[in-house]
Amino acid sequence: MEDILSEMTGEEIQLIGCGRTDAGVHALNYTANFHTNSTINNEDILIRLNDKLPDDIGVKSLRNASERFHSRYNILSKTYLYRINNSGYNNVFGRKYIHNVREKLDLDKMRECAELLIGSHDFQSFTSLKTKTKSTVRTINYITISEIDNTIEIDINGNGFLWNMVRIILGTLIEAGKENLNKDEMLVILNAKKRADAGPMVPAKGLFLKDVEY
Amino acid sequence: MEDILSEMTGEEIQLIGCGRTDAGVHALNYTANFHTNSTINNEDILIRLNDKLPDDIGVKSLRNASERFHSRYNILSKTYLYRINNSGYNNVFGRKYIHNVREKLDLDKMRECAELLIGSHDFQSFTSLKTKTKSTVRTINYITISEIDNTIEIDINGNGFLWNMVRIILGTLIEAGKENLNKDEMLVILNAKKRADAGPMVPAKGLFLKDVEY
Repeated sequence: MEDILSEMTGEEIQLIGCGRTDAGVHALNYTANFHTNSTINNEDILIRLNDKLPDDIGVKSLRNASERFHSRYNILSKTYLYRINNSGYNNVFGRKYIHNVREKLDLDKMRECAELLIGSHDFQSFTSLKTKTKSTVRTINYITISEIDNTIEIDINGNGFLWNMVRIILGTLIEAGKENLNKDEMLVILNAKKRADAGPMVPAKGLFLKDVEY
Repeated sequence: MEDILSEMTGEEIQLIGCGRTDAGVHALNYTANFHTNSTINNEDILIRLNDKLPDDIGVKSLRNASERFHSRYNILSKTYLYRINNSGYNNVFGRKYIHNVREKLDLDKMRECAELLIGSHDFQSFTSLKTKTKSTVRTINYITISEIDNTIEIDINGNGFLWNMVRIILGTLIEAGKENLNKDEMLVILNAKKRADAGPMVPAKGLFLKDVEY
């Protein structure tokens, strides 16, 4: 993208992305910003970008921001989406973008446990991060769990996420959905601040960065 | 699937499929039948099939049919779905299952031309089939064209389709959507019974067998 923009503008364009995800995680939406003195209009830049980009990247929109906008520093919150195929058969066309769980999950049991994570907590039990020098306190604003046609979609919105945090939370909620874990035990895990107490980490392929809010 | 069924039943199971599609065409639904004297219940067969099948095949349901049921001979009609990405950017996650058309298509113009194909006609202009010995008359029951979020979905239902017929009809309707072709010209193409007069064939990757009706 930097190459295409640099070629169009005749300037050396540096793209500032809104963050990195674990390997294998997808993005439905992703924000990036760049600075330019060019007067080429946005519509033309958008068309050229989409013409030249490989087919696994799409630019949905382009707009002017204030000179001081920074796509990473100005983030208020991020929303991640996790997708689970809870039917008894393969999701053939979405198989690279969904996690298969054959055992029927009890969504209400998952919601009960998810509820305990809302708000500001020390999420040390839910990260692969080993350093003790930085704060592991984060704020989760909401977790919603819905199901359509045996596809379960979990949205999780927060002010920031630790390394592997979403995937470990999801793995733990799935244990709750299988009734291997109840509300009281979830609270014990959260308070233990020990990674080993939480559930397994779910595969990256079901995870999407869904929205970045400013 | 035959191997799994044969192993389960101890019989030599032969699977009778509802037909073949062009290479690269997908199926959202597909019907097949087999005969067995086994008393294993359907639910157990379904679970075993889905456990053992590769991840690009899923068996949605299994039920008993009359002894005389034949998944190909008993077909009343088939519905095909064609998907077009008419946004200005790549459909990143669906890129293997959608045809990209950047130029904005006029759906009403496409519907006007599609209307002329409804009913029983000689579809010789819309097939790659070269033999003149078999009938090229087929009946199209309906063609519906809808759009959600810049994804155009075209359903086409008929009693049978000639080789490449759906893809050539689609290529011709896209020409109508680009206003390269009007209603009168569409009628001329249909009546000419010459493949060369119709539009180009669209890629197989956007095409799905959607339903088989009995």
